[in-house]
Parts: sequence; C-alpha cells; structure tokens
Amino acid sequence: MSKPLEGIRILDFSQFLSGPICTLLLSDFGAEVVKIENPPLGDNTRYGPYIDQEVSSHYAMRNRGKKSIVLNMKNEEHKKLFLKLAETADAVVDNYKPGTMEKFGITYEVLKEINPRIVFTSISGYGQTGPYATHAAFDQTVQAESGVMSITGEEGGALMKCGASVADVCGGLSACIGTLMGIYDAQQTGCGRRIDVSMMDSLVFGLENQFSTYLRTGEVPGPKGNRMEAAAPSGAYRCKDGIRLMVTVTTDAQWKNFCEALGKQEWLEKEEWAAREQRVGACRELDELVSQVFASRTSGELETMLLKKQCVFGRVNDFEAVKNHPQVKHRRTFVNAEFPNGVAFQVPGNPIHMSGMERQTEYPAATLGYHTFEVLKEASDEETLHRLFDPVLKEVREAEKKVYEKS
Amino acid sequence: MSKPLEGIRILDFSQFLSGPICTLLLSDFGAEVVKIENPPLGDNTRYGPYIDQEVSSHYAMRNRGKKSIVLNMKNEEHKKLFLKLAETADAVVDNYKPGTMEKFGITYEVLKEINPRIVFTSISGYGQTGPYATHAAFDQTVQAESGVMSITGEEGGALMKCGASVADVCGGLSACIGTLMGIYDAQQTGCGRRIDVSMMDSLVFGLENQFSTYLRTGEVPGPKGNRMEAAAPSGAYRCKDGIRLMVTVTTDAQWKNFCEALGKQEWLEKEEWAAREQRVGACRELDELVSQVFASRTSGELETMLLKKQCVFGRVNDFEAVKNHPQVKHRRTFVNAEFPNGVAFQVPGNPIHMSGMERQTEYPAATLGYHTFEVLKEASDEETLHRLFDPVLKEVREAEKKVYEKS
Repeated sequence: MSKPLEGIRILDFSQFLSGPICTLLLSDFGAEVVKIENPPLGDNTRYGPYIDQEVSSHYAMRNRGKKSIVLNMKNEEHKKLFLKLAETADAVVDNYKPGTMEKFGITYEVLKEINPRIVFTSISGYGQTGPYATHAAFDQTVQAESGVMSITGEEGGALMKCGASVADVCGGLSACIGTLMGIYDAQQTGCGRRIDVSMMDSLVFGLENQFSTYLRTGEVPGPKGNRMEAAAPSGAYRCKDGIRLMVTVTTDAQWKNFCEALGKQEWLEKEEWAAREQRVGACRELDELVSQVFASRTSGELETMLLKKQCVFGRVNDFEAVKNHPQVKHRRTFVNAEFPNGVAFQVPGNPIHMSGMERQTEYPAATLGYHTFEVLKEASDEETLHRLFDPVLKEVREAEKKVYEKS
Repeated sequence: MSKPLEGIRILDFSQFLSGPICTLLLSDFGAEVVKIENPPLGDNTRYGPYIDQEVSSHYAMRNRGKKSIVLNMKNEEHKKLFLKLAETADAVVDNYKPGTMEKFGITYEVLKEINPRIVFTSISGYGQTGPYATHAAFDQTVQAESGVMSITGEEGGALMKCGASVADVCGGLSACIGTLMGIYDAQQTGCGRRIDVSMMDSLVFGLENQFSTYLRTGEVPGPKGNRMEAAAPSGAYRCKDGIRLMVTVTTDAQWKNFCEALGKQEWLEKEEWAAREQRVGACRELDELVSQVFASRTSGELETMLLKKQCVFGRVNDFEAVKNHPQVKHRRTFVNAEFPNGVAFQVPGNPIHMSGMERQTEYPAATLGYHTFEVLKEASDEETLHRLFDPVLKEVREAEKKVYEKS
C-alpha cells in the first residue's frame, strides 16, 4: 500500500519549529517536501541548541525525509528557478515574519497566476494582517499573549509558561490541517487557497475549553495548580517512593471507585462528601487525607489498586520514564533518525498511526543544499545550475565549517 | 467560492473535547458532520461544566454546525441504520475508550467491507493497542504521563500541568490531520485507512523540541520556570503597573537591540556579557537588573521602547486582556455561536484563515437528536423511524428536563 500523500510536492521555506513540524507530517505520509534554505547557513536549527558530530538533533528530528536545496530569493535567477518549481507544486509553506515573502516578490496573487491549483500556507506569530502582524514572536511570547500563562502555575503563585512549545506546535498542526484541506479542495475544483495561520489564533482555539466558559461567565480565571475544576480529589499526590500520581475524581461513580480502590469505605459513607459540589467544597480536607494515604504506599502499589477500579490517574513521568514507558515502547512512539554522515539517534515519531503504513524509521535529514541539483534540473539546464550553485555550495560548506569549528 | 470539504460526510461518535474539536474543524470547512449521540443524554458536555438557559458553552462551542442524531448502538435496529449511513460516509470518528466500538460490533474490517473508501479514525488516551490501551485518560493524566508536567513550573518547584488542555487539543488536531490524509488518499485510490491517534503520542510529538535534545544528551530536564534555555535575559518581568512582559534575548544582535531599546548602552559595553553563553551564565544578575528597569516604567512605555527595536517580547495577558486584544479583534479570533433556542455568545473561532471563506459565525449547535429524522430517512422509511425514535426522543426530552431542573 502506498503512502497517502504520494505525488504531492511541497515547497517549504519554513524554519525553526512551527513550519518544519507542519511539513514533517506531510513528508512522513509521502509528500515530497523540498526545503528551500537561504545560503550560506540555512535554517538556524542546523547549528543548535544541541549539536554533536555536526548534527543538530532539532534539525534532524523535524526535517528528516525532506530534500534540501539552497536558493537566495533576493537573486533574480534563483527566484526564477523557484517560480518554475511553483508551476507544478501543490503547496508553498513559509513561517517567515509577515512581509518577508512579499519582499521576495512572492504573493498568493503571483503564485496563483502561474499555478491556479497552488496552496500557499503561511504561519506566523499573530497572522499576516493586523496591528501585531510584524511583531517578533517566539513560542513563549505567544504563550504569554494568548492567555496560556495566565492559567498555568500554582494557585496564587507565579504565572508559568507550559514547558512544551505549545504555540509552535498548535500553529504547526493547524497549518498542516489547512494545507491538507487546500490540497484536497484543489483536487476537486482546480483552485488553490491562501492559508494564514497564527500561533496566537491556534492557542486561543487550544484554550477553547477555558475560553468558552469565561466568555459567558465573565469570570477571569487564574492558575489552579494541578486541580481540575469541578473535581475533588484532584491533583498530583506524592507516593512513598517519591513518584507523584495525578488523580482526578469527578462523578459520584468515580468517587465510589476511588474510595473502594483505596479501601476507604468510611469516606464513601460520609454524607457531606456524597455530591460532587460537596467534595469540591471540601477539596483541601480531601487533599490532606489522600496525601496521607498516598504517602504510605509506593506508586506501584497504588497504581495496581487504582487500575482495578478504573480510576482516572496518570504517573507524573520525567523524560527518562517516558523513554522507558511500556506503552511508548509498544507504540514505537520514538523512531530512529539518521543523518547522511551516519549519525543515528532516536526522536519522537509522527503521532498518527495509519493502516498500510510502516512506522517510518529510515529517512535521514539532508545536509544543506544536498538536493540542489537533483531538484533544480527540472527548472534549468546543467550548465546554468553549475554556474549558479557551484560557488554557492562552496560558500555553504565553508560557512558551515566555521560554525562547526566554533561549536 | 465553496468550502473545501463540501460533499464530505463524517459520522461522529466523539464526545468531550479531543474528538469534537477534530470534527469541528472539518465541519467549519464544509464537511457534513453527523454527531451520533447515545440516548437519553448524549455527550456529557451538554450538561456542564457551565450551563445557562439550558445551553452548555462547552457543547455549543465545539459542536456548532454539526447535525445531532440519537442512536443506541446496542440496539440492532439502530446499529443497522448506522451501517446504512456508513455505506456512503467518508469517515467515522470516535474517541471512546478502546474496545467500545468493537463492543458495538464496529471494527475497521466491518466498515471497509461495506465501504472500502471509508476512513475510520479513533482518538484515545494511549492508543488502540498496548498495555495502557484501556487505561482511563483525562487531559491532565496524559499531561502527567507524557512528560509535559515534568518540565512545567518554577525551577526547583512543584511540577505543573499546562492550564490549556494540550493533550486533548494535540490529539484532536493530529486526528484531524490523519482523517484528512485518509480522505484525500481514498479519493485517489478508492481505499480508506484505519487511523489510530493517541493523546500520549501526540503530546510526545508536541515535546519534540525538548525530547530531541534529551534523547541525545541523556540529561533529564526539569522545570525551568519562564526561562528559555540558552537565552538571557529571559523571563516574565513585572512592570510598574503590575503587568508582566515575557522577554527573550537570544542572539548577540537581540542583546544589542534590547540594550538600545532600554537605553542601557553600559550593559552593551560590558565585555563579560558580550557572548550569549556569558549572558546565560550571568542570568541571575541580568534578571535583577532587568527587573529594576521594568519596575520603574509602565508596560505601555516598555512595549513602545521594545517594539522600536524589534525585541522579542509578549505581554502576559489574562483572559479579559485577550478578549480585548487589538490583534484578536482584528483577526476575529472569537466568533459568535448560537443555539436553536436563540441563546448567543462568543467562542474561539477556528484557527485557520483561508481565502474564499467567510469567518463563519452563523452555525448553531443542535439540540440532542434534532436531525434524527432528517438524516436517517436516507437509511429507512418514515414509519420505521417513528416507531424506533418517537419513544427515544420522548425519553431524551424527559431526561434532559430532569438534568436542567437540577442545574
């Protein structure tokens, strides 16, 4: 069985995180992703934050399976080659600051003129239009602006960002969805779309659970620690061995199961805790009691007891525990990534398990400009390409060498 | 211009959050989503956590634009009607605990027998297979298991969940991507796919920025507060008016801009802070100095100064500030949602801005079972439908009434 996106070509100007994970998902499922990098150094993530044997984990993780070509879009001859490729491509993706593609002379109007089917997806911090369009944005600054920080952290404590790069990730996933819809549509109608995804809009959408309540009640939420609203007991309780278990008891049925799992029939019999609202009202007292029980048993014992009654809980794992997690091993959540120089390591695999597909583990990320001639020979003759790119690639190798020597 | 997914039909067994946001995105872009709810009460989010005038914000937000029918899948006659609809549907989506659809007799093998083009997408906490497949999972328990909590919170402090429901959201977005790929593929090949997305895999993928470093260095990360690794100054600094600004200074060029924005030429001249590594080493001292400057000026003043030099920063907004955010207003990030009884309010809109599409604001969520006859008349005759569903819908209305009276 073939991969679902075979035959699709994406021209990918994206760098850092949000764009590359969007096109990684397309690449993993069979699309040919041609990553267009600016010489001499290309995507900044090639050089850090962690680099070993000239391979950056960040780059290799999220650019595996993509082709790499170099194009200087300020050079008219290079730009013409891009436009030639655009004539037959399915989509163009970028995550430059709004205005950058326009500076290159690349707008949706230009693209659809040469290829009406093309989808042009841009990811940015705040969107292509509006008063914040050109604001510089990193993941954590958009977490701040969007309200994520305002509800993360201990009750009454400092406002925290989420450790995961949720603005980049939600932006990248939303852009992938938009691009797929556009490509599907173009197959039906022959017409592409302009798609404009912001990390800000994506995070506000990701907060819908919280915003949909606020927008009706007008009550501005603050951080609630690890408590789930309208649940008690609810929180991360410490077991005898130091491991914490995240427990959530919502319905009366769950309360019954939880008391029975812990052998606390006497809690269940208390009329003042019979209803959910009562338990939420008594949450501090319940926290105290649950903490005592958990402190007297190991996490393993407690997990067995809670599982028997189908209680809702999770172990607070650090990264090492996740790596060794039995479910993660079973699912092959981590896959092997390689680099052409033979450096191999593990990275998170794509999160979509699909029938008729192997969990892909074989595709390396490419060195900068590796596919320049292979891809661009469609757009020009060999002599021209050598004239244009021999000096550029020489410059690339020299610039890289300097960076690697320093690191 | 039409919507990109017009003509597609999704049979949607999903409830709570992860599944409904997946199918909401499909519905917003033109797919006909038939939400199949179990009588007498259907999706639990119809009844809370916040309900007013018999309308739950959670339900109305994420189920707007979908059709609602009731089917009791344990009843053979009801099940036959579902199978009839499945003959022509493009996809089936569920987020039941693994094993539930099988209990109804619905497997991918059964579905593809009657419709080889069908895509069958399931979302679960840990996946359809493996030792954790049947573990009960809520958003926060998967945040715990996946490692998100282990890197969220103050340095050296308690491990925190992210306030946004990131496990549900990343799971839902990933499932939407898989479903779209499957539908695209079926259009090309005539064959559908079985798609199995777990919140756990989705969050580990969402942590790739952090995991790809850990998996090579073996250094288990802990919470870093609001600091970005390899950046200083970096954090949420408090201004004179109490507002905090999230600031990140990474490269030397950013450091220059930051010092110039604040009029601190003397910082820039210090040789011991000239290189990024030096600044990271001196992060406590820099925090102290930046905090003093910020405490002496209002957020408005500082924003103007920082913007002039294109510094990377964001305001730590609460939900009220997000609602009134100039960019959010410009983008129409929030849209109007309605309910058939006329109750109207605002909710986060879909995060994908697409040419040729109005930002949709017009579609209400449906009352439970509202489209039962309209949809099922394709699958049976009127007499049979009345025999089967008149009593069920009567039961629905009575059960609902009881819940609303209590709330």
